[in-house]
Amino acid sequence: MKLLVIHGPNLNLLGQREPEIYGKETLENINVLIKDECKKLGFKVEIKQFSCEGDIVDCIGKGEYDGLIINPAAYTHTSLAIADAIASVNKPAVEVHLSNIYKRESIRQKSLIAPVVKGQISGFGKYSYKLAVAYFAEI
Amino acid sequence: MKLLVIHGPNLNLLGQREPEIYGKETLENINVLIKDECKKLGFKVEIKQFSCEGDIVDCIGKGEYDGLIINPAAYTHTSLAIADAIASVNKPAVEVHLSNIYKRESIRQKSLIAPVVKGQISGFGKYSYKLAVAYFAEI
Amino acid sequence: MKLLVIHGPNLNLLGQREPEIYGKETLENINVLIKDECKKLGFKVEIKQFSCEGDIVDCIGKGEYDGLIINPAAYTHTSLAIADAIASVNKPAVEVHLSNIYKRESIRQKSLIAPVVKGQISGFGKYSYKLAVAYFAEI
Amino acid sequence: MKLLVIHGPNLNLLGQREPEIYGKETLENINVLIKDECKKLGFKVEIKQFSCEGDIVDCIGKGEYDGLIINPAAYTHTSLAIADAIASVNKPAVEVHLSNIYKRESIRQKSLIAPVVKGQISGFGKYSYKLAVAYFAEI
Amino acid sequence: MKLLVIHGPNLNLLGQREPEIYGKETLENINVLIKDECKKLGFKVEIKQFSCEGDIVDCIGKGEYDGLIINPAAYTHTSLAIADAIASVNKPAVEVHLSNIYKRESIRQKSLIAPVVKGQISGFGKYSYKLAVAYFAEI
Amino acid sequence: MKLLVIHGPNLNLLGQREPEIYGKETLENINVLIKDECKKLGFKVEIKQFSCEGDIVDCIGKGEYDGLIINPAAYTHTSLAIADAIASVNKPAVEVHLSNIYKRESIRQKSLIAPVVKGQISGFGKYSYKLAVAYFAEI
Amino acid sequence: MKLLVIHGPNLNLLGQREPEIYGKETLENINVLIKDECKKLGFKVEIKQFSCEGDIVDCIGKGEYDGLIINPAAYTHTSLAIADAIASVNKPAVEVHLSNIYKRESIRQKSLIAPVVKGQISGFGKYSYKLAVAYFAEI
Amino acid sequence: MKLLVIHGPNLNLLGQREPEIYGKETLENINVLIKDECKKLGFKVEIKQFSCEGDIVDCIGKGEYDGLIINPAAYTHTSLAIADAIASVNKPAVEVHLSNIYKRESIRQKSLIAPVVKGQISGFGKYSYKLAVAYFAEI
Amino acid sequence: MKLLVIHGPNLNLLGQREPEIYGKETLENINVLIKDECKKLGFKVEIKQFSCEGDIVDCIGKGEYDGLIINPAAYTHTSLAIADAIASVNKPAVEVHLSNIYKRESIRQKSLIAPVVKGQISGFGKYSYKLAVAYFAEI
Amino acid sequence: MKLLVIHGPNLNLLGQREPEIYGKETLENINVLIKDECKKLGFKVEIKQFSCEGDIVDCIGKGEYDGLIINPAAYTHTSLAIADAIASVNKPAVEVHLSNIYKRESIRQKSLIAPVVKGQISGFGKYSYKLAVAYFAEI
Amino acid sequence: MKLLVIHGPNLNLLGQREPEIYGKETLENINVLIKDECKKLGFKVEIKQFSCEGDIVDCIGKGEYDGLIINPAAYTHTSLAIADAIASVNKPAVEVHLSNIYKRESIRQKSLIAPVVKGQISGFGKYSYKLAVAYFAEI
Amino acid sequence: MKLLVIHGPNLNLLGQREPEIYGKETLENINVLIKDECKKLGFKVEIKQFSCEGDIVDCIGKGEYDGLIINPAAYTHTSLAIADAIASVNKPAVEVHLSNIYKRESIRQKSLIAPVVKGQISGFGKYSYKLAVAYFAEI
Repeated sequence: MKLLVIHGPNLNLLGQREPEIYGKETLENINVLIKDECKKLGFKVEIKQFSCEGDIVDCIGKGEYDGLIINPAAYTHTSLAIADAIASVNKPAVEVHLSNIYKRESIRQKSLIAPVVKGQISGFGKYSYKLAVAYFAEI
Repeated sequence: MKLLVIHGPNLNLLGQREPEIYGKETLENINVLIKDECKKLGFKVEIKQFSCEGDIVDCIGKGEYDGLIINPAAYTHTSLAIADAIASVNKPAVEVHLSNIYKRESIRQKSLIAPVVKGQISGFGKYSYKLAVAYFAEI
Repeated sequence: MKLLVIHGPNLNLLGQREPEIYGKETLENINVLIKDECKKLGFKVEIKQFSCEGDIVDCIGKGEYDGLIINPAAYTHTSLAIADAIASVNKPAVEVHLSNIYKRESIRQKSLIAPVVKGQISGFGKYSYKLAVAYFAEI
Repeated sequence: MKLLVIHGPNLNLLGQREPEIYGKETLENINVLIKDECKKLGFKVEIKQFSCEGDIVDCIGKGEYDGLIINPAAYTHTSLAIADAIASVNKPAVEVHLSNIYKRESIRQKSLIAPVVKGQISGFGKYSYKLAVAYFAEI
Repeated sequence: MKLLVIHGPNLNLLGQREPEIYGKETLENINVLIKDECKKLGFKVEIKQFSCEGDIVDCIGKGEYDGLIINPAAYTHTSLAIADAIASVNKPAVEVHLSNIYKRESIRQKSLIAPVVKGQISGFGKYSYKLAVAYFAEI
Repeated sequence: MKLLVIHGPNLNLLGQREPEIYGKETLENINVLIKDECKKLGFKVEIKQFSCEGDIVDCIGKGEYDGLIINPAAYTHTSLAIADAIASVNKPAVEVHLSNIYKRESIRQKSLIAPVVKGQISGFGKYSYKLAVAYFAEI
Repeated sequence: MKLLVIHGPNLNLLGQREPEIYGKETLENINVLIKDECKKLGFKVEIKQFSCEGDIVDCIGKGEYDGLIINPAAYTHTSLAIADAIASVNKPAVEVHLSNIYKRESIRQKSLIAPVVKGQISGFGKYSYKLAVAYFAEI
Repeated sequence: MKLLVIHGPNLNLLGQREPEIYGKETLENINVLIKDECKKLGFKVEIKQFSCEGDIVDCIGKGEYDGLIINPAAYTHTSLAIADAIASVNKPAVEVHLSNIYKRESIRQKSLIAPVVKGQISGFGKYSYKLAVAYFAEI
Repeated sequence: MKLLVIHGPNLNLLGQREPEIYGKETLENINVLIKDECKKLGFKVEIKQFSCEGDIVDCIGKGEYDGLIINPAAYTHTSLAIADAIASVNKPAVEVHLSNIYKRESIRQKSLIAPVVKGQISGFGKYSYKLAVAYFAEI
Repeated sequence: MKLLVIHGPNLNLLGQREPEIYGKETLENINVLIKDECKKLGFKVEIKQFSCEGDIVDCIGKGEYDGLIINPAAYTHTSLAIADAIASVNKPAVEVHLSNIYKRESIRQKSLIAPVVKGQISGFGKYSYKLAVAYFAEI
Repeated sequence: MKLLVIHGPNLNLLGQREPEIYGKETLENINVLIKDECKKLGFKVEIKQFSCEGDIVDCIGKGEYDGLIINPAAYTHTSLAIADAIASVNKPAVEVHLSNIYKRESIRQKSLIAPVVKGQISGFGKYSYKLAVAYFAEI
Repeated sequence: MKLLVIHGPNLNLLGQREPEIYGKETLENINVLIKDECKKLGFKVEIKQFSCEGDIVDCIGKGEYDGLIINPAAYTHTSLAIADAIASVNKPAVEVHLSNIYKRESIRQKSLIAPVVKGQISGFGKYSYKLAVAYFAEI
C-alpha cells in the first residue's frame, strides 16, 4: 500500500503560525511522525506541501497512490476543484485537520472536501495524521 | 485510565437500521471491538447506550471517567444539554460517527456537540470508535 | 393487524390545554374513538402517551406492531431521534395532528417526522386519528 | 351534501407521469374510487381537472358545493390566488396530495393552500382522496 | 384620455370575501365610483375583472389605453408576467390596493408589480381607485 | 379639520438633492401646492420639516391635529420610534413618498412606518402629497 | 423529427418591448429563422405563443412532438406547473432565453424549468433558438 | 401561595461548571436563598432539578402550584414541549437565567420559553431567582 | 448610591398609548413607584424621559450616577449609539421593559442594548422597574 | 477569426471521472470535435486545459484571440478572478458545461462567470462546445 | 480649501471608552493632530462632535466646506439619513474609523455610509484621520 | 524599513480594464508613484504582481519585509489562504483598493482579508497606495 499525504497552504509555516491555534509542532516533526507510523505498518508514503490549489488538483489527479490523506488547510472551505479531483480519482481519502474546525469562526466550519472523502478527523493536533494512517491499516 | 463510551438513541438497532447507511455490524460487534482495543492498551472501559437525552446528561455529569467517547446519534444535531454537560465536566472527549455526516442531509451536517469536544472522527464505520480509543493512547 | 398509537407530550392535558386551538375533547374521548374504530375493523390496538422523547424512541424501536399512528406533538418540530426510530424500524407509519399545523406559528410548520412516514394527516381534530386508522384498513 | 373535487395541472397525465413518484394509477381510476365512495355515503359529487390557475379560481368562487376536495398539484406551491378563492368562499375544504410532499424537494414542502383549508392529507396515493371524502362523512 | 382599470382574481367576490379585511363594498359599487370620477374629469374608462393571469397579460399588452390602473390582487405577489407586460407597453400605470398590504402577512408585503409602475396607492379602501384616477387628472 | 404635514430629514435640500431621483421641485413649491389644496378644501394645515428623529416623535405625540401626512424620508426605513408615536396617538395618518421606493435599493423597499398608517402613497412626485390631502377630503 | 417551439408571455411584443434588453427583432423574424433552420435539416416544426400558463401546460402535455424548444419568459421563474408538464411527458426539451438571464435582477437568475430540461441556452438573442434546433440535429 | 421552582439540566453542576460564566455559587446556595426569601414572604415553595425534558413537562403539567419559576438551562433554546406545558397549565410563570443570555453565542439568544411566560429575568446571577420571587409578592 | 432612570421615546404617552399592550398606568404613576422604592432603600434617584436618541447618549455619557435603569423603548431595537454609550461609561446598568418583548413582533425580539447591560427584566409591567431597583439593593 | 478554448480543472480526467455525470467521452474526443467544427467554418483554434486558476487568468488576459469558449469546471462557482479577466479583456466569450448544472447540488447552480459572458450553454455533453463554436459562426 | 471634520456619538468619551478597542488617545489629542496637519497643508478646518443624528444631518446639509471627513461611529451602521445628507450635498467625503471595523462583531461590518463617500479608511487609530486629510492634499 | 507591495490578479491589465471603474492609470504609473513616495521616506520597496493565489501565499509567507501593502483584487473576496498567510507571518499589513468596494455588487463588499490586516483603505484610486505608504511613515 502506498499513501500520499498532502499538506495545504501555509502549513509550511507551522510552529511559527498562530501557535495558540495550531500548536508549536513544525511540519517537519509531523512528517517524521507520519513516516515512522508508515514504516511500522509497512506502507510506502509520499508527503507533499503545496500553496497552489491547481498543484494539489494535479497531484491528486495523477492517482499514483492507494490511499490519500489530505489536510487542505484554507482550501477546505473554498476549493471545489480539489473536491472534484478527489471524486474523479475514486480512491479512499481521509481529510484531517490539526485544530477542531468546529470551534472556530463560521467560515471554517463548512468543508467542501468532506462530502467526497471516506471520513474526516479533526482536532487532534499531529495525532490527526497518525489516526488517519491507522485507518488505512484497518482496510 | 478509564474510558466511558456512550452510544446515543437508536444505535441499539444497528444492523437492522438502514444498513445502506450504517452498515451491517451490530452494536454488540462494535462493543467487542472497543473492549478488545481497550484491553490491549490496558484501559478500563464502561459502555452505555441511552435513548433519553436526560440520561446521557446525567451519565456525563457524574464524571466517573478519565476520557469520554460519545456517538450522540440524532442528539448530535438537537441537544444543547449534552453539549453543556460535556463542557461542565471538563474532561477530554471525542465525538464519533459511523457514517460521514457531511455526506448526508443538511440537518445532519451541523453538530452542536463538536464545539465542546477535543476532536471529531466521522465516517469510518466501527473504526471510528477504534481510532477514538487510539487517540487516548497518545495522551 | 396490530396498531400502535403514540400520543406525544402534553396531549394528556387535552380539553384543558388551549381549547381555542385543540378543542374541548379529552384524550380519553379520542382513545375511545380509536378503539371503537379498530374494533369495527378487527384490528388490535395499543395506545400510549409519553412526555419523554427517549421513551417514544424506545417504544417505536421495539417494533411490536404492524402499523404506527403517531401524534408527536411538540416533538414533531424538534426530535430527529424519533424520526430515526421510525426510519430504523421500517414499518408503515402515519403522522397525525389535531390542529392544522400550517395555520400556526412558523416553528410549528416544519415537521422533522414527515419525511420518514407514509403520510401525514393534519387539522381534522379527533378525526385525524380516525382517518389514520381508516388508511390501515385500505392496505 | 354536494362535494366538488378539483384536480390541478398535469394530473390528467397520471399513470404516464413519473410513475416512481405518483404511482401507476390513472386519473380515471381515482375518479371511480371517489365516485364509489360518495355513492356509498349518499353524497353528490362533481369532479373537475384544470390546467389553468384562473379556471380553478373561478370554479371555487362560484361556490356551488358544500365541501371542497382539492389537489392543487404544482399550484400548491405557487398560487396565492387559489388560496384567496378558498378563503373568500368560506366553505369546508380539504387539501390532498398523492405523494408525501414532505419527502420531496424543498420547493414542494411549502403549501400556500394549507393555511386556508380545514386540513391536509398527504402521501397515501389514491387513498388520500378517499380519506378526504371520509372526513366529510364525519361532519 | 382613456383609462383602463383591471381588477385581479377574486375581486368579483368583494363584499362577501373576508369583509373584515376588504370591507363590505361590492365591486359594482367601486366601479360606479370610478366611472363617476372619470365622467367628472372627462376621461373615457374601460373596466375589466380577470381570474386568469394570462388574460391580464393579454389585455395590458394590447395597449388600447393612455393610462392603466391595476389592482392585481393575489397576482401582485406571484406574477412576473404581469410586471413584464406593464414594462413592455411603456404607458403610465398605477398599482392600487384596497387594504394596506404592509399590515398583512409577509408574503403580501412584497409586490412584483411595484417596480414597473409609476406609483402605488395602498390601504384607502375604494378611495385607492379614486386617488389613482385623480393622479391621471394631474398629468 | 386640521392637517399636520411632516417632512423628514434632507427634504429641505429638495431641488438640489439628487434631482434625477427626487425631481427639480423645491420643498417650497411642494408646500405651496399643499396649502393651496387645503385652502380649496377648507382645511387648516401646519407644515414642518425636521432633521431629528426625536423632534418628529415629539411633534406627532402632541397630537394637535385631526390627520397626519408624513414623508419620513430616510427614517422610513430605520425609525421604529416614529412608528410607535403614530400608533400611540391613534389618529388617521398617510405615508407619502416622492419617488417610488419599490424601484430603489433594497433597504429602501421596507418601510417600518407602513404597518401603522391608514395607507401609503408612493412615487407620484409632489402629487403624492396632493393625493394624501384628497384622501382626507373623502373621510 | 417534429419540433414544438413554445414562446411564453409577452414575447409577442418583441421589438417594441424594452429593446435595450431584448433587441429589435420581432417574434416574426425569429420564427422565420427557426423555420428556415428546420427546413434545412428536414424537421417538421410547430410554433406557438401563449400568455396563459395553463395553455402551455396543456400544449406540452399533449406530447405531439419529438423535441421541445421552450422560452418560458416570465414563467421561467414562477411556474412549477410547466416544469411538471415537461417532466411528465419525458421527451427531450431545450430551454432558451434571448437575454443572458444571469446578467439581470436576482429573481430572473433562478429557473424553475432548468432542472427538468436536457440543457439551457441563454443570452445569444435569436441565435439561442437556432442553436437549440442545431442540438436536435445532433441526436 | 405555593411556588414551584424548576432548575433545568446541568444546573446541579453549578460551581464546578464553567465558573467564568455561571459564577462560583452552588445550586445548594441558590436554593437556600430562594427558601429564605419565600419564608420571609410567607410562601410555600417546592424546588426541583431535572435533567430530562419529559420530567420537566410532567412536573409542570401536574399543576400543583400557584406560580412557576423556571430556569430551563439548555432546554430554553431547544424545547417546544416545555413551552407547550407552560401554556397548557395557564398559571403565572417567570423565566430566569443566571447569565445574561444575550451576551452569549447566538443559539443562546433565542428562547422558546419566553413567549409563553409572564416575563423574563436574565443576567443577575443568583439574584435572578430572588427577583422572580419578589415579583410574586407583588401580585 | 445614586440611580439614574431613563425612559425612552413615547413612554410619556403611557396610559393613552396602546393600553392593550402597555397597560393603563401613566408614566407619573410609575415614577412615584420608583421614587418610593428608592426612598425605602435610601437611594438617590434622578428620572428622565427623552424622545431623542442623542439626548439619551449624552445623558448616559455624563456618568453622574452609580447605577442605570433604562427602558429604551423603540431605541432598544435600533440604537447602537445608546449601547455604545452604556459600554463606554462602564457602570452597572439594567434594561427594563413593561411588556414581554419576546411575545411581540419579530423586530421587537432583538435588543441591541441587552449585550452591554448587566441584565434584562422584561414583561412585568411597572414592576419591571421595581425589580430593577431591588437588584441594586443586592449589590 | 481565432478561437481560444479553455478547459478548467479535472476535465483532463474526463471519461474516467464520474461517468454517470460527465459521460464516457475523453477530453481528446471533445477536442477532435471542436477542431473539426472549426476547420469546417474556417476558424483558427487554440485549445488549453489548466488546473490552476491563475494560469487561466493569465491566458485570458493575454487576449490573443477573437472569441473565447470556456468551461471553467469547478472554478465556475468559486473564481471571481476568472470573471474579472473576461470582463477586462472585453472580447465575446461563451461559457459551456457538459452537464446541466441546474440539475446538480446547489453550489453548482450559481455561476460567477455567467454575468460577464455573452451567453451560457449548459447540459448538452460534448455538443455544448459544438454549439458554442456555431455561435461564433453567426456573428 | 476648507475641511469639515465630524465626530459621531460617544467619541467625546475617547480614552475612557473601551480602551482595548479604541486606544488611549483622547479626542482632544486627535483634534490637535488634525489641526496641525491642516495647518501644514494650508487648509482651513472646522471640527465638530455630535451625539444627535439630526444635528449631523443638518451640519452636513449646510454645505459650508469643500471636503468632509466623517467618523460616524455607531451611526455608521444605523443611519440612512446621514448617508442621504452626504449624497444630497455632493461634495468629496471620506469615512474614517479608528478601529478596523471588519475585525468586530457582524453588525459593525456593514457601513450604510460607505456607498456614498469617495473612500473609506479604517483601522489606523488616529492616523485614519491624518490619512484622510492627506487625501484632500492630493486632489 | 522594507515594504512589500503585492498587486493581485488582473491588475496588470489596468488602464485597459473597465476604465469606468478602475480609471485610466496603468499599473506602471501606480508603481512609479509608490516608488517615488518610498524614496522620499527612505523606505526600500519591492513590488510584485501575481495572477496565482498560491504565488501570493508563498510570497507573503517568506516574510522578507517589514510591512506589507496588498491589493488582493478578486482574491479579496474568495481567498482564505491569503488571509491565513498574512495572519501566519504576523507583520503589519495594509489592504488597499482602487475603487470603493462598498459601492459595487454585493460579492465585492465582503473582504476575507480585512479581518487580518491592520487597516483598509478603499476608493481613492492610485492614492490608496500612497496613503498606505504614508501610514508606514507614522509607525
